[in-house]
Amino acid sequence: MTQVHDHTATDEAPQSSTAAPDAATSPAATTDAAPAINVEWLGEYLLGKWAKERKESRTLMSNPEFHRVDGLSMEDHRERVLHQLSLLVENKAVHRAFPIGLGGDDNHGGNIAAFEETVLADPSLQIKSGVQWGLFGSAVVHLGTKEHHDKWLPDIMSLKTPGAFAMTEIGHGSDVASIATTATYDADTDEFVINTPFRAAWKEYLGNAALHGKAATVFAQLITKDVNHGVHAFYVPLRDDSGPLPGISTEDDGLKGGLNGIDNGRLHFDHVRVPRTNLLNRYGNVDENGNYTSDIDSPGRRFFTMLGTLVQGRVSLDGAAVLASKLALNIAIKYGSERRQFTASSNTNEEVILDYQRHQRRLLPRLAQTYAMSFAHEEFLEKFDGVFSGRTDTDADRQDLETIAAALKPLSTWAALDTLQEAREACGGSGFMAENRLTQMRADLDIYATFEGDNNVLLQLVAKRLLTDYSRKFAGADAGAMAHYVADQVNEAAVNRTGLRRFAQNVVDFGSTARSIGYVRDTDSQRQLLTDRVETMVADVAGKLRSASKLPQAEAAALFNSHQNQLIMTAQAHAELLQWEAFTRALEKIEDKDTAQVMTWLRDLFGFSLIEKNLAWYLMHGRISTNRAQAITDYIDDRLLPRLRPQALDLVAAFGLTDELVRAPIASGIEAKRQNEARDYCAARRASGEEPVHEKDLKQKKRR
Amino acid sequence: MTQVHDHTATDEAPQSSTAAPDAATSPAATTDAAPAINVEWLGEYLLGKWAKERKESRTLMSNPEFHRVDGLSMEDHRERVLHQLSLLVENKAVHRAFPIGLGGDDNHGGNIAAFEETVLADPSLQIKSGVQWGLFGSAVVHLGTKEHHDKWLPDIMSLKTPGAFAMTEIGHGSDVASIATTATYDADTDEFVINTPFRAAWKEYLGNAALHGKAATVFAQLITKDVNHGVHAFYVPLRDDSGPLPGISTEDDGLKGGLNGIDNGRLHFDHVRVPRTNLLNRYGNVDENGNYTSDIDSPGRRFFTMLGTLVQGRVSLDGAAVLASKLALNIAIKYGSERRQFTASSNTNEEVILDYQRHQRRLLPRLAQTYAMSFAHEEFLEKFDGVFSGRTDTDADRQDLETIAAALKPLSTWAALDTLQEAREACGGSGFMAENRLTQMRADLDIYATFEGDNNVLLQLVAKRLLTDYSRKFAGADAGAMAHYVADQVNEAAVNRTGLRRFAQNVVDFGSTARSIGYVRDTDSQRQLLTDRVETMVADVAGKLRSASKLPQAEAAALFNSHQNQLIMTAQAHAELLQWEAFTRALEKIEDKDTAQVMTWLRDLFGFSLIEKNLAWYLMHGRISTNRAQAITDYIDDRLLPRLRPQALDLVAAFGLTDELVRAPIASGIEAKRQNEARDYCAARRASGEEPVHEKDLKQKKRR
Repeated sequence: MTQVHDHTATDEAPQSSTAAPDAATSPAATTDAAPAINVEWLGEYLLGKWAKERKESRTLMSNPEFHRVDGLSMEDHRERVLHQLSLLVENKAVHRAFPIGLGGDDNHGGNIAAFEETVLADPSLQIKSGVQWGLFGSAVVHLGTKEHHDKWLPDIMSLKTPGAFAMTEIGHGSDVASIATTATYDADTDEFVINTPFRAAWKEYLGNAALHGKAATVFAQLITKDVNHGVHAFYVPLRDDSGPLPGISTEDDGLKGGLNGIDNGRLHFDHVRVPRTNLLNRYGNVDENGNYTSDIDSPGRRFFTMLGTLVQGRVSLDGAAVLASKLALNIAIKYGSERRQFTASSNTNEEVILDYQRHQRRLLPRLAQTYAMSFAHEEFLEKFDGVFSGRTDTDADRQDLETIAAALKPLSTWAALDTLQEAREACGGSGFMAENRLTQMRADLDIYATFEGDNNVLLQLVAKRLLTDYSRKFAGADAGAMAHYVADQVNEAAVNRTGLRRFAQNVVDFGSTARSIGYVRDTDSQRQLLTDRVETMVADVAGKLRSASKLPQAEAAALFNSHQNQLIMTAQAHAELLQWEAFTRALEKIEDKDTAQVMTWLRDLFGFSLIEKNLAWYLMHGRISTNRAQAITDYIDDRLLPRLRPQALDLVAAFGLTDELVRAPIASGIEAKRQNEARDYCAARRASGEEPVHEKDLKQKKRR
Repeated sequence: MTQVHDHTATDEAPQSSTAAPDAATSPAATTDAAPAINVEWLGEYLLGKWAKERKESRTLMSNPEFHRVDGLSMEDHRERVLHQLSLLVENKAVHRAFPIGLGGDDNHGGNIAAFEETVLADPSLQIKSGVQWGLFGSAVVHLGTKEHHDKWLPDIMSLKTPGAFAMTEIGHGSDVASIATTATYDADTDEFVINTPFRAAWKEYLGNAALHGKAATVFAQLITKDVNHGVHAFYVPLRDDSGPLPGISTEDDGLKGGLNGIDNGRLHFDHVRVPRTNLLNRYGNVDENGNYTSDIDSPGRRFFTMLGTLVQGRVSLDGAAVLASKLALNIAIKYGSERRQFTASSNTNEEVILDYQRHQRRLLPRLAQTYAMSFAHEEFLEKFDGVFSGRTDTDADRQDLETIAAALKPLSTWAALDTLQEAREACGGSGFMAENRLTQMRADLDIYATFEGDNNVLLQLVAKRLLTDYSRKFAGADAGAMAHYVADQVNEAAVNRTGLRRFAQNVVDFGSTARSIGYVRDTDSQRQLLTDRVETMVADVAGKLRSASKLPQAEAAALFNSHQNQLIMTAQAHAELLQWEAFTRALEKIEDKDTAQVMTWLRDLFGFSLIEKNLAWYLMHGRISTNRAQAITDYIDDRLLPRLRPQALDLVAAFGLTDELVRAPIASGIEAKRQNEARDYCAARRASGEEPVHEKDLKQKKRR
């Protein structure tokens, strides 16, 4: 933090290699000498490490057989998606992550990359195939052992056994540890008895449960010899051709807010018996005498290890949210570059709506955010691949992966909904037409914010990790170091409170916007501002919660609860920093000068937007002076937006979304065609003298 | 502004009659002595001046025949809604605004009030009836004359003539003046020739156009004797029983993001001839010789007068948005008061989710906002009724009404979408089930943000009015006064820049949160902070745009454009102030002490949330010190949320939404029933000793 203060005092901004050049002094000048980005190269770069798999998937998803058809009944949509799943099998599109021995590729990153792209065809297709191979099948892979693999995976891979992933209950979603379904070992018959004790314990919202599922991986409290060993997964047959098996009841969730191509439903088990060996026993086993054993001694760690396999759901939702945002911006920016409305600068030619500042303000920061999300996702996916391939699979790696997932998935799924909605509104009535895809995509992605972990719950996990790391930092330190740190904090607070630092800034900055903005225009200063905020927020909330460990449980809970919002905001700040860091690292590998320049402006827009959003915090904590605060908004409005406006079409072109993937008529050029036809008609009328004179022009003439 | 500064200097907050009492020193203490609001009285109060009409409408809308049925095909939904419209006629529910002479009541406010409530049955029903009687019929009433009324209104009122309101074109929505359809007078036949010159001029998105419309009020450029007199409305027959009439082409818009009970479509006119007398000629007439006359000489004023009748669309969207927000909060707060998740304060009992601070942060400020919107809407509706009844119908009244409409409709329609989404997420997976209504309501209301005037365009109209008023303020002033004002501004800026005032505040406030918050806790201080912000923003942007009048058109346009975002934010601040003022005025009539207290807390939460949202502005402009800024957030978290939490159920109960109007299973008590069943089951198991011991508890015991 002291480094930040030093900057402040000297007002000398260090210029890093990726600093935004500030030669252009006016928007107009910038536009004249606009750099040209290498769209093809940038497109490849965005596809990332698994470009091949992404392209294969995009090619497949260009096939109309995979496309969502608007207006289908729920029943027809469900059948269509089930059929699409069989087409995925035929096209060998879904086995990349399965063991090589069974016909898979053991390619975890490539599998997720290809899987994410299916969202462009139909999110129902994505999620239903995710249920089948990413959850149901994956539970057998990761929680089962060789015998299970050999016995069940071939039919799961071929879709001969469609299956459900029966974890969530009506009573418990994100709090998996509290599920109430039981699996009690009966030594007399060498079976587990799966049972649903009450209504709240019905398995709920499960894809494949209402209609198509023939089996399920059922999560239940494993009980043997009167001891509950916590949540474990069991392979449970659900249906044969004549319907649900004895003891199993199903209900259909019916119509949902989206994803209606999936047959979500509920399951109830009335003392359903399965062989003991149906326990997926990689992390915990019961022998024929009912003795429980596990390689992981701690029940808590065992639980988190088993649940760790779920992280791939969060990876792929993060990636799908990035793609949906790219689709939305592709549509809105293309349309906004053609659509003309209102005559501002002349009497005859209407303005292209993307030339309006407000329209730029609505779309360009979201474009910057989407790039940040895209680069952050790529790093996340590589981390995931490292862990799941076993290359970098330590406990620390797994914990980091969980934290990254819990940080990025909330931000990107919320951002996708926000961007889809802004794009919808930016396209006006056209945006509301189903054929232009924005409304349906938004409806389908709505649930991404709360499934595979509720976003607010996930962010609390991140906050917990930040607090743990923070306290660890001081665990080995002696009392003196801690006291010194606290004293620093107090000093800093005192300085902030009297406003001395800010006062100094103001005197130096007075009247000089250019020098003010120099402070944050370079990479290092942006990093410092963003990092400093996260660190200060963590230290601040940690300080407030410090007494919790000494309090009785109820009081400690109340203390935590009174800072819950602050904890979540802290986690969000951390996640934003992760995105910004990923974007910044991505800049380093761009060699083409023009591309690097434009991408740096875009990264700056992302960084500045984050700082602007949290400006009150920066002002309150004395990190930015009043003048510098205003300069941030001015720099976005006067420099970055005008510079990026002419780049917008290229920046969405780099997403590489072909017409078959976009499929929105308003992004196809029809708007420009209509505009040109109208303009030509009017010009011809004026030229031929057929155009009637306007009453108001007549009146103006008379007045003269 | 100096008043604000005086407050700051003395740090003595004046206590108004509606100041929030601050006797309780801890949330716990507050909860213990929680006041009890008079729900019944408050419910009546919220229903407002047209409580009778609202109740009549709610009773009617409780009838299942009017309810949206999920999962209908578009075709069936359209037929159902058409049939519902005929039921509205049978029940005499839609004629309140029509002339008494024709069987109406000339009751404009009551008509809109009753109409708004229909959104609770199905937004498609609301909007389709709005098209028929509020737009198509209303155009004949307000733009036509007695002959037209007698000829067409009876069949419009009875639905014998379903009709479209053909104003918007593919090429022009919010910019109505630029529509390209022409109506050229042909003196030889005494007819108008309605023509669509090119594709962009097709009438678009019109309810009743695809299927049911037998006629339309078509807006077109009126041309006679080679002069274009601007946009006028014409009554044009569209279809007979065998289909579209000669020269008329129609297209179906097909599936939309919502409102699929309405048959939106396009219309094209190929030199369609209608009698001259089909011109709705209240504000402009053409005689048989082709001479144009109008009582309103200025074409601009004439255009705005004609379009003024459209304001009732904005009034009713504002009211419908308020109702949708009430519905969403009713569902989410009831569910949040029953749903339990995670054990925080004990090992056995899970917490009710509304007891979590974050959950309160998500729902309670939106509850406060909804109350503000509700009171603001009531004032808006009374203003509307005054103008349309002719009681208070001056030019100034109409302009004020337009500005209020342009300010409130954007805020409330955006807020409704935001609240519906937050409620959806707050209900987790249950919120995504169609039966719980949040997703469908959101999908239907999506378009409210851009129809009847795009929200961003409307806010610019507000900004324009603010600038006009501002410049008028100085129009009569001499140069000395203006200079003095500017000097004041400059002085103020200088003071802000050096941070002197803020410094003084900090010294006084240091360490005293209670005294800091005293500054804004009372009504007058909140008003001053909110008003000051609006006034300063207006003055600021006006100053920046001052040179525009001296610039060439293109440069002036560029100058305006470079401040477009600022203009819109200024308009938004003004609109928020309108809502806050309405809420504050509403407090004055509450006599019951407990109710007044709770409602004052709620108003404070609204005011504080506005200030917190714009905290950076207040800090940058030296209006709030750093400590006071932190105190605002603390006051929300530590005082207002804990005080309002126990009131939440009563506050939504006062919305008076019966089970028939809500119809969401999760708001019916089933969640509490499930929770209780689960709890009782577990308690009985523990009591009988059947509950297996947990492995982790065993391990803990062993370790001891």
